[in-house]
Amino acid sequence: MRIAFCCTHTTAEPWVERLRAALPEAQIEAWVPGAPQADHAVVWTPPQQFIDEQPGLKTLFNTGAGVDALLRMRLPPSMTVVRLDDAGMAVQMAEFVCQALVRHMRELDLSESQMRQGQWSFRRPRLRVDFPVGILGMGVLGRRVAQAVAHFEFPVRGWSRTPQTMPGVECFHGPEGLDAFLSGTRVLVCLLPLTPQTEGILNRKTLGRLLPGGYLINVARGAHLVDEDLLALLDEDRLAGATLDVFRKEPLPEAHPFWRHPKLTLTPHTSARTLRDETIAQIVGKIRAMERGEPIAGVVDRGRGY
Amino acid sequence: MRIAFCCTHTTAEPWVERLRAALPEAQIEAWVPGAPQADHAVVWTPPQQFIDEQPGLKTLFNTGAGVDALLRMRLPPSMTVVRLDDAGMAVQMAEFVCQALVRHMRELDLSESQMRQGQWSFRRPRLRVDFPVGILGMGVLGRRVAQAVAHFEFPVRGWSRTPQTMPGVECFHGPEGLDAFLSGTRVLVCLLPLTPQTEGILNRKTLGRLLPGGYLINVARGAHLVDEDLLALLDEDRLAGATLDVFRKEPLPEAHPFWRHPKLTLTPHTSARTLRDETIAQIVGKIRAMERGEPIAGVVDRGRGY
Repeated sequence: MRIAFCCTHTTAEPWVERLRAALPEAQIEAWVPGAPQADHAVVWTPPQQFIDEQPGLKTLFNTGAGVDALLRMRLPPSMTVVRLDDAGMAVQMAEFVCQALVRHMRELDLSESQMRQGQWSFRRPRLRVDFPVGILGMGVLGRRVAQAVAHFEFPVRGWSRTPQTMPGVECFHGPEGLDAFLSGTRVLVCLLPLTPQTEGILNRKTLGRLLPGGYLINVARGAHLVDEDLLALLDEDRLAGATLDVFRKEPLPEAHPFWRHPKLTLTPHTSARTLRDETIAQIVGKIRAMERGEPIAGVVDRGRGY
Repeated sequence: MRIAFCCTHTTAEPWVERLRAALPEAQIEAWVPGAPQADHAVVWTPPQQFIDEQPGLKTLFNTGAGVDALLRMRLPPSMTVVRLDDAGMAVQMAEFVCQALVRHMRELDLSESQMRQGQWSFRRPRLRVDFPVGILGMGVLGRRVAQAVAHFEFPVRGWSRTPQTMPGVECFHGPEGLDAFLSGTRVLVCLLPLTPQTEGILNRKTLGRLLPGGYLINVARGAHLVDEDLLALLDEDRLAGATLDVFRKEPLPEAHPFWRHPKLTLTPHTSARTLRDETIAQIVGKIRAMERGEPIAGVVDRGRGY
């Protein structure tokens, strides 16, 4: 068995070494143009040339949860795309969303900045019952975030494409459930996969439906959001603010109005990082399962887009 | 039954109204000098004159979890002091500590400030296994915080005066267990009651025992901390930083070196706020239990100090 490693923005060596240690029977190499045909590949945003030179690849193991970039490439139908499931990312999402939520609800950034200016001031406590949190997308990540938000006793609601249930979470689904979901949500957390159906789903119409003082936390993909619509709603005071970890173009282009906007908290696509050891363990586990002829989790339905 | 309300820093009217609605059989008044003798009192840092004028008070219901200020007053031995148990404070502590912990571990403040300066930069992910969290004080609040920190999959250890156990938490106790507790802790969270034994417990010796890159979160009382020792350890790079919500003098005096210290995050004693409705419900429940001759939770052992 031959495995090609082709992850941009990543130093290949430690990954290849650890993959070799975990799969000593396989031949594992960082891909270079002209390399021999591999059976499986471990990838993150590979160049089209890689796909074109490796038509015999059976499986593309994506080292992230979102496969939108991969599915925008020309991939032969014979290739199975496998996304990362959790692998230490869900808990990172959960803690990232919770810290953004708590800071917003508790007005901690304001308190801290007043303290930095030498000002000690009490603020009236706000009640969590007034901050229902709505999770858009109830997959592995969305459910873990819902669980953490419920742990802190916020009212939680979830929206998904197909019907779902989760104890303690008020669940909505489908286009027909979206309005009711949004209109009872004050803090909206986007954890959807990016597909043609979800692109631009965070827009003037949907964000405008949130409860007064609405707040957006986008930790999914930048293309879920219509940037101008968010800016307009912030400037009209229809939304209180947003925490954005993802952007249509990353790094965020220099001239983008999001930079330095006083109602925005920005982070550089850091809400859930791929953890090397967990990721390798998961991919190796899946390769071994495939060898034994067992089904594996995370196989992407390319028609559905995730 | 007559109940006196005497809470400084609080508008009495809404409290008195709600207490009256919950206990219609009682006479409930905001205390004024010369008021008739009451049976019970609902208090927060009352003046000594109140205690001296009301020697017949059977019970002082403190509207906070910490009774250190009350116990520093001259109180007749006949008065029972009752502290608030949880009443919506534990979850606030848990979320406050978690947001401080996650921001520190994930270096989010740094990422956000770089973004505010127009800088997009990746930081190597740090692993939660390298951030064992130690909770000093495993009462109602400490245990709830431990639970939340464990929910985010951090290694958790707890220290208490007397032996305790909690699933998933490595427990230490007594003066003889303190060193081992500290030397395996990187993020230290103080949730102890303030007593003569715990005053100054956060000092050069104890904080100096933490793992390299140690971080302090003090949400208990300012007098747990020896301010100069913290400053010295920060300036010597023996500690990475601290989140401080409580101070020896509050508001923090104007000339205090904590203001604007680059390694400190300060908040104005806001980590867990007294929630009026929950607090009244709890106190009313205890008064009714006492009338029925039942034992109540939260009775302070004045010798022990909490």
